[in-house]
Amino acid sequence: MKWQPSRKDELTLQQQIIQWVTKHIERGDWVAGTKLPTQRQLAMQFGVNRSTVQQALEELKAAGILESKVGSGIYVADNSWDSLMTQTQPNWQKYIETSLHKPNYHTIQLINEYEQRDDVIRLGTGELAPSLLPTAEIEESLKELSLQPKALGYSSPQGSYKLREAICGYVKKRGIHAKPQNVCIVSGALQALQLIAVGLLEQGSIVFQEQTSYLNSVHPFQSVGMQMIAIDRNEQLAQTLAQRKRKRQAVFYAVPTLNNPTGGVWTTLEKKNLYEACKSSRIPIIEDDVYHELLFEAATAPIKSMDESGQVLYIGSVSKTLSPGLRIGWLIGPTTVIERLADIKMQTDYGSSAISQEIVLHWLRSGKYEKHIKSLRKELLRRANFIEGILQERFTEMASWDKPKGGFYIWLKFHEPIVDKDLFTKLLQRQVLINPGYIYDPQDTRHIRLSYAYATYEELEKGLKILFDVVKKSK
Amino acid sequence: MKWQPSRKDELTLQQQIIQWVTKHIERGDWVAGTKLPTQRQLAMQFGVNRSTVQQALEELKAAGILESKVGSGIYVADNSWDSLMTQTQPNWQKYIETSLHKPNYHTIQLINEYEQRDDVIRLGTGELAPSLLPTAEIEESLKELSLQPKALGYSSPQGSYKLREAICGYVKKRGIHAKPQNVCIVSGALQALQLIAVGLLEQGSIVFQEQTSYLNSVHPFQSVGMQMIAIDRNEQLAQTLAQRKRKRQAVFYAVPTLNNPTGGVWTTLEKKNLYEACKSSRIPIIEDDVYHELLFEAATAPIKSMDESGQVLYIGSVSKTLSPGLRIGWLIGPTTVIERLADIKMQTDYGSSAISQEIVLHWLRSGKYEKHIKSLRKELLRRANFIEGILQERFTEMASWDKPKGGFYIWLKFHEPIVDKDLFTKLLQRQVLINPGYIYDPQDTRHIRLSYAYATYEELEKGLKILFDVVKKSK
Repeated sequence: MKWQPSRKDELTLQQQIIQWVTKHIERGDWVAGTKLPTQRQLAMQFGVNRSTVQQALEELKAAGILESKVGSGIYVADNSWDSLMTQTQPNWQKYIETSLHKPNYHTIQLINEYEQRDDVIRLGTGELAPSLLPTAEIEESLKELSLQPKALGYSSPQGSYKLREAICGYVKKRGIHAKPQNVCIVSGALQALQLIAVGLLEQGSIVFQEQTSYLNSVHPFQSVGMQMIAIDRNEQLAQTLAQRKRKRQAVFYAVPTLNNPTGGVWTTLEKKNLYEACKSSRIPIIEDDVYHELLFEAATAPIKSMDESGQVLYIGSVSKTLSPGLRIGWLIGPTTVIERLADIKMQTDYGSSAISQEIVLHWLRSGKYEKHIKSLRKELLRRANFIEGILQERFTEMASWDKPKGGFYIWLKFHEPIVDKDLFTKLLQRQVLINPGYIYDPQDTRHIRLSYAYATYEELEKGLKILFDVVKKSK
Repeated sequence: MKWQPSRKDELTLQQQIIQWVTKHIERGDWVAGTKLPTQRQLAMQFGVNRSTVQQALEELKAAGILESKVGSGIYVADNSWDSLMTQTQPNWQKYIETSLHKPNYHTIQLINEYEQRDDVIRLGTGELAPSLLPTAEIEESLKELSLQPKALGYSSPQGSYKLREAICGYVKKRGIHAKPQNVCIVSGALQALQLIAVGLLEQGSIVFQEQTSYLNSVHPFQSVGMQMIAIDRNEQLAQTLAQRKRKRQAVFYAVPTLNNPTGGVWTTLEKKNLYEACKSSRIPIIEDDVYHELLFEAATAPIKSMDESGQVLYIGSVSKTLSPGLRIGWLIGPTTVIERLADIKMQTDYGSSAISQEIVLHWLRSGKYEKHIKSLRKELLRRANFIEGILQERFTEMASWDKPKGGFYIWLKFHEPIVDKDLFTKLLQRQVLINPGYIYDPQDTRHIRLSYAYATYEELEKGLKILFDVVKKSK
């Protein structure tokens, strides 16, 4: 919405605004039921007085094109089309509101939106900076790809066999023994979770997770009616799980290595305890292991490596290490489960991009992948130290944090409960985008997820200064 | 399952089979509740007598590892793990059975499976032959790609802006006026349907379609509880739609140009009638237009080009023209709808492959795409003529068909109702894979979808001869 009325036009500002709104409705961009921005917002966008906007909207209401709902705002009228040209169109807004899938949380929609803008400092982004992606090397490796004629056809349900073989070789170093038939290629970890949600769980199933969880910021399970229950992994797990599970189906979601957003790393004993507890209650475990390559020190074995009973579904991905744009991850589990989820993937999107699969295969096989990760880890460590330096300089009086063990994040905890939508918005007005703790735990008003992986050193410094100022002022 | 026991092993064949089955269960590949193949099938696979298999299975049953269900077969026992090593594992089979998403129809699972095999003649495949894909040119164009550093990050919710711009330019030639904000990049038409199903329709909504429909062979709508109603487009549409819709939300799914599987092409009047009828009942139309580039004669304008009320959701794709392996399609509609569906796509898979998007952008912009399609159409016409020649030679006494107007398919209609699972299986035994009509219309026992797009000329000839023989014999 970059449009503004022109003061040089022969029409008045008000007339231009009326025309502009009408055109949007005619084109079907603003459909019946669409809520308009507030008069204040429109005035700012149009660069005119609020009274000009108000007069224009009044005229449109009088014409039956817009309608007010008391205390709620102004909407495109249900019969706006009749008013415009005696046509009707579907009430899209109603379609959307009554449909099955939940929208993203508003904060996350805003994050998605503002992440597209170049003038915003992204202090929380869960993604490598463009400068940390091996773009030139990937471009170079495209020249080395030699495509088999069949490579560009529809994929087999589980994905490229060669890639699955290569992944088996790769995870073996993590102590996981899998065969290609135990692997399904997915478009990242999130798709793996979606497939599990619709392909493995009955409605009303329980998803156990930690209190602060990535799953609260997306909602593959919530969207299809699963019940989320937070569990402290240091409680008496076996007993708690058995009690709370009752007769329901259940699954335990865990990110034991470099948890998103807390950065936490489980001890081997904690992993073992979870495995044993879940085994005794026959609860499958989803082990989300997409950050393990980014540990600054050597990683301990994943839960999957202890799995003798086929009850751990293991998720890996190149999104956090090589490129999220490739959209390639993997899910490892018993063949029965893998075949089922591959069948649903075929019904969902007919498989992942063949070219992306070829690229990942090439990078795994040639050793480029592991070489790249080594240098990536070094750069992330350097960035972690840099950001910690700033935190120590400025933030010790208002916040605390753990030294990062790897990955992207510092889980910054403010002494006061100040992290709310208001802080998020105030920072956004100063062009600083944060990931507030409440998107990972609705109860949380003290944390933000700081990422040292995305912004430049300069932006990190500037962004943290603004964060400091805004917090200081809001106290 | 290529394993066979060795006669040179120190263990007996029976012991080796017991060991092999046990290992599969221990590894979690065969989980509690898994149904074993029949004894006959196992004997064939293992290359042993049926009695050897029977004895091995009896022993495993006695040990509590397998169990018989009367009249149903042999299963991995619920407590097989207790028997094996006093461990327990989740009852995956039960998880699968009670989960939300329907499995693919068995015939389609078989088709997906057999399509992976090189020794099968694929007479029905909805995919271009490897020789018709411009593999070498795509490989070549990879060298021309120059990736922006941001290109490999997470995509914006609607997909690459440049690609959306290029698509707007491309569909303009089809009389569709869209802006980038009206476009969402998807991983093919099927994903577009999935997004519409969960993002736009309430449970129990009605999906109108033609009696014989692609939607019956996949089930993006059925899987989430929508109700499918077949409509004859030559009925009194407006009245029928209004009557059958009642108070429900509804949507009309149409493939007006080169319908899959019938190959039918709607007249402009038929399109207009549908548009008017849907408009008067305020029913959105999903126009699936993925085959239009493959019309042998000039295409008439799509329904979307008549759409002044923003009620047509238009789907395009490169899967049928350039490469299904790229997984790139597009959905065009009012911004309200597009933003909603893009939001769900972000929650589902975080966008489509960036590299695939770059490739399609390059092919659209450079003119390579349209040039390729021209020569593709010629080759498809040649193949259509070839297959029709064979049909005319052999099949006139048992079947009839319409001359294909483009695309991949001839909708072959047998005079007798002979197209059933039995025919499908008999042909599979002779290594010929068909797409029987009943997967597109459960009532249909007369049609098969013949595709001249996939098999080689030699295979087409051989496959049709086998089809002829098998039908002849089965009469």
